[in-house]
Amino acid sequence: MTDKFSTPIQLRPIGYVENGVDEAISPAMIRAVESRIILKPRLENGLKSLGLSSRVMVIFYFHQSEGYELQQHPRGDTSRPKRGVFALRTPRRPNPIGVTVVDLDRVEGNVLFVHGLDAINGTPVLDIKPA
Amino acid sequence: MTDKFSTPIQLRPIGYVENGVDEAISPAMIRAVESRIILKPRLENGLKSLGLSSRVMVIFYFHQSEGYELQQHPRGDTSRPKRGVFALRTPRRPNPIGVTVVDLDRVEGNVLFVHGLDAINGTPVLDIKPA
Repeated sequence: MTDKFSTPIQLRPIGYVENGVDEAISPAMIRAVESRIILKPRLENGLKSLGLSSRVMVIFYFHQSEGYELQQHPRGDTSRPKRGVFALRTPRRPNPIGVTVVDLDRVEGNVLFVHGLDAINGTPVLDIKPA
Repeated sequence: MTDKFSTPIQLRPIGYVENGVDEAISPAMIRAVESRIILKPRLENGLKSLGLSSRVMVIFYFHQSEGYELQQHPRGDTSRPKRGVFALRTPRRPNPIGVTVVDLDRVEGNVLFVHGLDAINGTPVLDIKPA
């Protein structure tokens, strides 16, 4: 049981996000931005058939998130009661993983052009799945 | 650019799955099973307000998945053309992460009782979010 709780899991990015957003802005604003996901060139063949879906799930790592509290005000709004971190989508969480379903505009080689990704420039991407 | 591709990311499970399923069965079958997610006791306070949602997203690590090909037949069915790994939900992928939206039946202390989780007994859980 101790092992199940403590075994570290090591991942490597499959790529990263490029967009014009260099610091956190509101999710609503960032979702309107076009982002490019630059995949490792050797993984490009893994994109075959992805264009069949117009929506894809992007799993990424909030690389600038530091620390967390177990209970937080939604969107930092102190007028709202605190909720548990697992009942929030805040980047400040035990494993700072984000999951967002985005609109896939097109794929060019190892680059995905998407809308709706709430991740800043340089964010490491861990996985892409059909939504 | 090299750094963005190669920086390793280390995570630790927030808990693990308990159910009666000790080896891979079809997603349809395993989804009918009740599973318990045993959270690390010190994270229990992070579950506050989770019961307000009946659906939660579970992010987990396919700990028994070994290796992958960039293109695979859907569900291993060789009568269907191969697709790219990022257009499939196969556990055999560069970062073997699973994401499933489950029905949350109830929370008791640090244990979540859920239906619809396609993860076998002992699977490490990385995150829980509102669906």
